[in-house]
Amino acid sequence: MKFGACLPTFASCADRYCLSGYGGGASTVEGMLDLATTVPDLSGIELVGNWHINDENIERMKQEVARRKLTICMLTPDLWTQAKWGKGSLAAADAATRRAAVAETTKVMDWAAAVGCAFVDVWPGQDGYDYLFQADYQKQWEWMVAGVRACADHRPDVQVLIEYKPKEPRTHIGIGTVGKALLLIEEVNRPNVGVLLDTGHAAEAYENPAESVALLGRRRQLAYMHFNDNWHAWDDDMLVGSIHIPELLETIYWLKRIGYNGWYTLDIFPYREDGVKAASESIAWIKGAAELIDRIGMDRIGGIIERGDATEASALMREIVLK
Amino acid sequence: MKFGACLPTFASCADRYCLSGYGGGASTVEGMLDLATTVPDLSGIELVGNWHINDENIERMKQEVARRKLTICMLTPDLWTQAKWGKGSLAAADAATRRAAVAETTKVMDWAAAVGCAFVDVWPGQDGYDYLFQADYQKQWEWMVAGVRACADHRPDVQVLIEYKPKEPRTHIGIGTVGKALLLIEEVNRPNVGVLLDTGHAAEAYENPAESVALLGRRRQLAYMHFNDNWHAWDDDMLVGSIHIPELLETIYWLKRIGYNGWYTLDIFPYREDGVKAASESIAWIKGAAELIDRIGMDRIGGIIERGDATEASALMREIVLK
Amino acid sequence: MKFGACLPTFASCADRYCLSGYGGGASTVEGMLDLATTVPDLSGIELVGNWHINDENIERMKQEVARRKLTICMLTPDLWTQAKWGKGSLAAADAATRRAAVAETTKVMDWAAAVGCAFVDVWPGQDGYDYLFQADYQKQWEWMVAGVRACADHRPDVQVLIEYKPKEPRTHIGIGTVGKALLLIEEVNRPNVGVLLDTGHAAEAYENPAESVALLGRRRQLAYMHFNDNWHAWDDDMLVGSIHIPELLETIYWLKRIGYNGWYTLDIFPYREDGVKAASESIAWIKGAAELIDRIGMDRIGGIIERGDATEASALMREIVLK
Amino acid sequence: MKFGACLPTFASCADRYCLSGYGGGASTVEGMLDLATTVPDLSGIELVGNWHINDENIERMKQEVARRKLTICMLTPDLWTQAKWGKGSLAAADAATRRAAVAETTKVMDWAAAVGCAFVDVWPGQDGYDYLFQADYQKQWEWMVAGVRACADHRPDVQVLIEYKPKEPRTHIGIGTVGKALLLIEEVNRPNVGVLLDTGHAAEAYENPAESVALLGRRRQLAYMHFNDNWHAWDDDMLVGSIHIPELLETIYWLKRIGYNGWYTLDIFPYREDGVKAASESIAWIKGAAELIDRIGMDRIGGIIERGDATEASALMREIVLK
Repeated sequence: MKFGACLPTFASCADRYCLSGYGGGASTVEGMLDLATTVPDLSGIELVGNWHINDENIERMKQEVARRKLTICMLTPDLWTQAKWGKGSLAAADAATRRAAVAETTKVMDWAAAVGCAFVDVWPGQDGYDYLFQADYQKQWEWMVAGVRACADHRPDVQVLIEYKPKEPRTHIGIGTVGKALLLIEEVNRPNVGVLLDTGHAAEAYENPAESVALLGRRRQLAYMHFNDNWHAWDDDMLVGSIHIPELLETIYWLKRIGYNGWYTLDIFPYREDGVKAASESIAWIKGAAELIDRIGMDRIGGIIERGDATEASALMREIVLK
Repeated sequence: MKFGACLPTFASCADRYCLSGYGGGASTVEGMLDLATTVPDLSGIELVGNWHINDENIERMKQEVARRKLTICMLTPDLWTQAKWGKGSLAAADAATRRAAVAETTKVMDWAAAVGCAFVDVWPGQDGYDYLFQADYQKQWEWMVAGVRACADHRPDVQVLIEYKPKEPRTHIGIGTVGKALLLIEEVNRPNVGVLLDTGHAAEAYENPAESVALLGRRRQLAYMHFNDNWHAWDDDMLVGSIHIPELLETIYWLKRIGYNGWYTLDIFPYREDGVKAASESIAWIKGAAELIDRIGMDRIGGIIERGDATEASALMREIVLK
Repeated sequence: MKFGACLPTFASCADRYCLSGYGGGASTVEGMLDLATTVPDLSGIELVGNWHINDENIERMKQEVARRKLTICMLTPDLWTQAKWGKGSLAAADAATRRAAVAETTKVMDWAAAVGCAFVDVWPGQDGYDYLFQADYQKQWEWMVAGVRACADHRPDVQVLIEYKPKEPRTHIGIGTVGKALLLIEEVNRPNVGVLLDTGHAAEAYENPAESVALLGRRRQLAYMHFNDNWHAWDDDMLVGSIHIPELLETIYWLKRIGYNGWYTLDIFPYREDGVKAASESIAWIKGAAELIDRIGMDRIGGIIERGDATEASALMREIVLK
Repeated sequence: MKFGACLPTFASCADRYCLSGYGGGASTVEGMLDLATTVPDLSGIELVGNWHINDENIERMKQEVARRKLTICMLTPDLWTQAKWGKGSLAAADAATRRAAVAETTKVMDWAAAVGCAFVDVWPGQDGYDYLFQADYQKQWEWMVAGVRACADHRPDVQVLIEYKPKEPRTHIGIGTVGKALLLIEEVNRPNVGVLLDTGHAAEAYENPAESVALLGRRRQLAYMHFNDNWHAWDDDMLVGSIHIPELLETIYWLKRIGYNGWYTLDIFPYREDGVKAASESIAWIKGAAELIDRIGMDRIGGIIERGDATEASALMREIVLK
């Protein structure tokens, strides 16, 4: 298993009230990378275009990462932190903005190729709407299809992954559920487009992440995993395993079952926690969950699922937790 | 516009606590039909197989409905009220149950053809799961595809409509969102399969029903509409317009825009209300909303959507409500 | 620890779709009691007035329970399953209904005294509203205060417990949160009135049950506990421990810390499960959780809480689950 | 009716992704005040301590506000935007932080007195917890009581108002519901302590704001109102009236009925909207709603409430919206 983390895990995380963040973490990219090296089993780092990497520093960053024996597992075009994306990026009503979003994404795809990273993460968090009577839902969908297709066609050697999420920063994001994500990429119809599943985004949409893994796996469209936990009401980006333990175990079980062999990456916001400890804990949960699934055995779990008896699943969990 | 209602609107509605219902309404099918005739603008009635119609009474029911100048706008196979469907119907793990569900549905399709009804409503409310480690999500999906396909292939002159809903009676229903409903019917790939959109089910899934109408309309897959309202947390099946007025208006706008010319049917549970009044109010809301949209003008609304300015939409609503 | 269960755990549980229930369980009270005796560690049974006990059968029921070595841990007046309570019971707008609700409750208090049961459970599930502009919130509150006080004053030797819940069967129940429950009983101001905390009702209200236990304990108002689990969106009445394991552990920790020595009673709806197995599993979870808390040690947990570091709590849970 | 607005309405609003905000608005306090003067009917401004007012500028700010013919309707101590408050303010586990929070609040109370403002808004958004096993709920409650009391005792001529909210920035805020707010201030037991009701916070907690107004009014504890709207799942801080129109009307009805004569202040985040237009629209909604309630008549509405018939309320709303 390959474990990764978003680099801001090791910085100070902000919310809309405390814009400077709650402190802790490093203030430079190099400092964040240094912290990353102290997390057991962590080998991958997600970087955001322009924040961490740009035309000027790309060669240096590649070396900074490499000499720490890290891998850039994901490059994410920044389509959300600047005011210019406020009313949309790839699916903005404004044509120039849409072009700019494609240009931003393809530029990051080039950087990805240059640093040997296979993926870019397109998270269209600004593409949606907040209010009623504010969006042409059909055009938004078509703009999104066209935009993703344009990115994919830029170069076939980098995969364009769609990360869905139901809400935030818009009250409604267009690509909000596993169903919509699959519809989108199947309409886009390019081999280098896939889905990035964020367990917290799925749970926020009242999906059970394990089910979403299974459905994506059935269509061979699950390319990448983000892990975190939340209270099932918002994208709290909490430590993995902090609330939903059986849900985590079932997700890992299905990842094994569909033969997922990609990255297990953290997308957590340790607002008030030490980033290194938070990442270490989260990876320990994922790794430990995978080992536990192996100890229990895929066949035994498969039998419980086949029989579909909730009391049998309960007995297994009790055996694990309360033994 | 053609308005319909589920027949139990005119009976006593039960919940899990008050199984005999809160009183009011009729106790016979004929009595419910009589009540239906007193609702202004109501011309369609949804009947449920076995509850209201069966091999014995089908000719008589056809006449009972016709002489009241009503139309059977929908026949619904009962795939949920009996213990035998408790662990699933079309997608049950038990093969005999799946066959029985197909048989039940095709039987109702035959009845539909016999009474001149174009649709059957397949609501797979029991097909899903309650607990973790309880369902094989991939097999469930395949069983559902196969089951719907088998129904559709039974006869091409009756449309099989899929009504999606995120939860209840299962804590997770397999076909729970507009995205999954579209994926399902596109995988089924039969011309006589479509989607039934229930506005309350959509809202319960944090969908904005207007957006779901637009997306279904874009793929020409919206065949039928159920209307009701709720508090956005559960399928409360409340009177239309009782909570979400701008949402209703936007939904009607999009139905006009995609050229929807099907039924506007109520799926409300007036637990403690007079069924005739509740239905009359609800139809008056839908009809009045449609007239209001016409008075405002599609072009004016289209312009507001195109500009995407929430304050302009607000001003329009104020003009309507507070003038 | 004393473990109890609501008697319908051992019957067939209905929902609003499948009114006859999904099968299984016993069909007579005696049969349900027989099943109850097969659940390890179960010693208490909650009965509902009129359903299970009445003036005619009270002596016989007392003996039926006793000869199975069970205890009636709770008698619940039925203030919700009949149409007459549909618009409220103790806080109904109709004065005769309010009087009837007090009469029903005091009658059950007399039965409780007669069978040696210390508590009646007043769950005012019908006292609230569904729609806007439907309730006089101030009068409802005053009627509730007066009604509970009248019950309490009927006889001081039986405790009147208020079970709060945010919604269902009404879309809004008046006494919906721990805060409102405390306000109510402090305004009622009688020594024989207390709060019954149902962990699922609390969680449905976005309360963390452990916090609610702590707040009730601080005012010495926690008299009784109902256990179950849910997906945090509705009162799913699932098996204890099926979704929220750390939440259960924290709840048990706080019950120990406030010195709770009352009943640990199940309020689960094993719709599609075997009732005996479901109850056995649920009790095993509670009992096992309590033993686990003891093994970890109150002091160690107290230290983690005092330091307030999420990563330390995470490490403890990992040690438990993944060791 | 007196209308106010939080000053940041006229700046650029940030979220956790777009920290610099989406643009628009003024960048200086004077600029924001200038914009405020262009909003019809707006006369009050809420300022935040240290952000807008401090020991150095207080005399000048008083004049800046006065010469624009505005009133400072509220001064809010900043207990949430700095890292030092990240683990709590008045109820922090750290005693020095608690003292600092009291000092911050009392300093702002002095400023309030100096500028002729009657209120300070204590919003304890950081006082709560994110994770399980992270907070001593009993001590937190006691610290909050002590802290609010210390503030209130500082000077009797400024009212200390408690603004409750269920979550954000913590996943659980201690004073999260109307019930807890009332319990808190009744335990604090000082005449100059009251409740500030934010309609969006109430709705996010599954409260119906009208009901919360009624309950606070009954105990004469409602001192101040914040208005906004949301999708009932998060504190979206949207324009008033954008989603929930009947809910707004019922809230205004109850404010009239309890004789509320305080401020009607906006707490909106017009992220992507023009702040002046957003505020103008929102005030027009509140003012128009109040006029509409008067036109309908308190007695007529009172009669509908008394009869409690949802279809009658529906007919009234239809008459208003669809006439």
